Amino acid sequence: MDNKIRVIIYGIGAIGSSIARAALGKKGLELVGALDISKDKVGKDLGEVLGLNRTLGITVTDDPEGLFSRIRADVVLHATSSYLKDVYPQLEACIKAEMNVVSTCEELSYPYYKYPELSRELDEMAKEYGVAVLGTGINPGYLMDTLPIVLTAPCLEVRRIKVTRMMDSSKRRIPYQKKIGTGLTVEEFSRMIEEKKITGHVGLVESIAMIADALGWRLDEIQELPPEAVIAEREIVTSYTTVKPGRVAGLKSVAHGVRGGGNVITLEFISHADVKEEYDAITIEGTPNINQKISGGVHGDLGTVAMALNSIPKVLNAQPGLWTMKDLTLPSSTPEDMRTYIQWREE
Amino acid sequence: MDNKIRVIIYGIGAIGSSIARAALGKKGLELVGALDISKDKVGKDLGEVLGLNRTLGITVTDDPEGLFSRIRADVVLHATSSYLKDVYPQLEACIKAEMNVVSTCEELSYPYYKYPELSRELDEMAKEYGVAVLGTGINPGYLMDTLPIVLTAPCLEVRRIKVTRMMDSSKRRIPYQKKIGTGLTVEEFSRMIEEKKITGHVGLVESIAMIADALGWRLDEIQELPPEAVIAEREIVTSYTTVKPGRVAGLKSVAHGVRGGGNVITLEFISHADVKEEYDAITIEGTPNINQKISGGVHGDLGTVAMALNSIPKVLNAQPGLWTMKDLTLPSSTPEDMRTYIQWREE
Repeated sequence: MDNKIRVIIYGIGAIGSSIARAALGKKGLELVGALDISKDKVGKDLGEVLGLNRTLGITVTDDPEGLFSRIRADVVLHATSSYLKDVYPQLEACIKAEMNVVSTCEELSYPYYKYPELSRELDEMAKEYGVAVLGTGINPGYLMDTLPIVLTAPCLEVRRIKVTRMMDSSKRRIPYQKKIGTGLTVEEFSRMIEEKKITGHVGLVESIAMIADALGWRLDEIQELPPEAVIAEREIVTSYTTVKPGRVAGLKSVAHGVRGGGNVITLEFISHADVKEEYDAITIEGTPNINQKISGGVHGDLGTVAMALNSIPKVLNAQPGLWTMKDLTLPSSTPEDMRTYIQWREE
Repeated sequence: MDNKIRVIIYGIGAIGSSIARAALGKKGLELVGALDISKDKVGKDLGEVLGLNRTLGITVTDDPEGLFSRIRADVVLHATSSYLKDVYPQLEACIKAEMNVVSTCEELSYPYYKYPELSRELDEMAKEYGVAVLGTGINPGYLMDTLPIVLTAPCLEVRRIKVTRMMDSSKRRIPYQKKIGTGLTVEEFSRMIEEKKITGHVGLVESIAMIADALGWRLDEIQELPPEAVIAEREIVTSYTTVKPGRVAGLKSVAHGVRGGGNVITLEFISHADVKEEYDAITIEGTPNINQKISGGVHGDLGTVAMALNSIPKVLNAQPGLWTMKDLTLPSSTPEDMRTYIQWREE
């Protein structure tokens, strides 16, 4: 209990920086290393990179193996990319250095559907090196998988699950507003969809696969529809641009889990400017029915940072292996000293 | 996978009967025994006791040791009493017969606060005999503990949690309406509170203690207030009685978790006739805030039956010991063959 939990930050982009700042403010955690490939960060002190008014004595490096050979950590907080193929070698380096991993990689939240082979390899590697690996975040990782799964618990039967995340993009970071096509013409939006410059939300497929796995449902298929433009009906001023009527205010991503010819799981991710009410809603058609709503929604970036930090004790308490949120003990906040929540794993 | 999961029902009251009926309709489960102390049930076929139009070949007995020596089961579904001291010898008999237990005993949902010593003994006994024991139900077990704990997961800070369960008692069983004082005068209600003939809802203290444990909060105390009468403002016709204005329509039970002089957890259980809207609401003051509501609420009896059945695989997959909902993997429904969800424990 005397020793703090030693943490390395892997990836100091928008989310990684927020995770690092939150970790610095967290009792019982000690930041001991920082990794990033960006030329304007490598070699600098992490305090400077985070825009703090102090140095932390942690120099950002782009050499994971070098860092891992010098510095021991209990857990790597990993936030570099949404895609498993990009992060696989990074995860491999962490695991082979015998470090537990909590990652915000969207595809890692439930990798068994798209990458059964890579998932099996990661699981075996994690078991061989005695560490636990988890992909998490607000979505995927919580709002569209963990929470709907938990909401089925008082149901004797479940026939259909629908989750809607309705977000007001005008309050979000400018790069985010750009990413969802805010201000484009409908033609520009369509071209960017075709060219895959607008990809919609990454994680719907993973969330559907995780729900189906938890419920023991074998799906015929998972259908991910191309993102649709949401058109502005009036002029909307956002922090990024002014959207003229008829132009794109944002987008809607929909995916279905199909079984027996019907959509048994439907996830809707809607994010645009001029949203009347933000919310996260889950409807379960079952016995009994459940109609749940989080009014105001859950702040995306804050939520992802919290999910990453709050997962640290769950991962440190878990048996070695590759896990998803559905496999670990009940998720919960960690408002006290982080060491409060740890039962150190027997070696 | 070929063998069904063998289940014994311990207690065939209102909830136990519903659990037994649901278990009979569940693929992958096999009912192999039934226990009850009631003279008008012992010796009869379970089918008759449940009011089915068929016999089940299972004779209700009041002799657990006798039954357990003849019949092996994987899990005992236990629903006899709300109080741990009443059920302790029953649980002991199950554990010593090497049978896992899922119980709806309210005080077993989180027994560590009121009965630390008995809890330790149960945990050690369960470990010695290699079985897992869980107390669960809709409330306590889910709506006022498991669900609020899960809703803290996307929070970096948690300052205060409030849970309100607003129920329309006029739709419930008549003994339930009677139990909450429906139709009494205020004086009669007060006297029955004093004489402890009306006890309010059992489980608020357990739910508060479970939330505090999950969050790592040391509470100064848990305050359980005496139930308050909710007074009818107009004449209300229920399935049990007609309530005149000024008489008791039902009750409100409130409990607080106190820390640093403030109420950091508040649970409100409100159940009366003439409720405008049924709901279960959870508010978390934290970073970020979470405002969640289940419109229409969750049906209490159905929910408890579902929680008991859906917990079977969680308990069979768990390590031996006494567990609470916060210790097990993510709760979820079991709409398919129950064997789908089992990873048989290595002996």
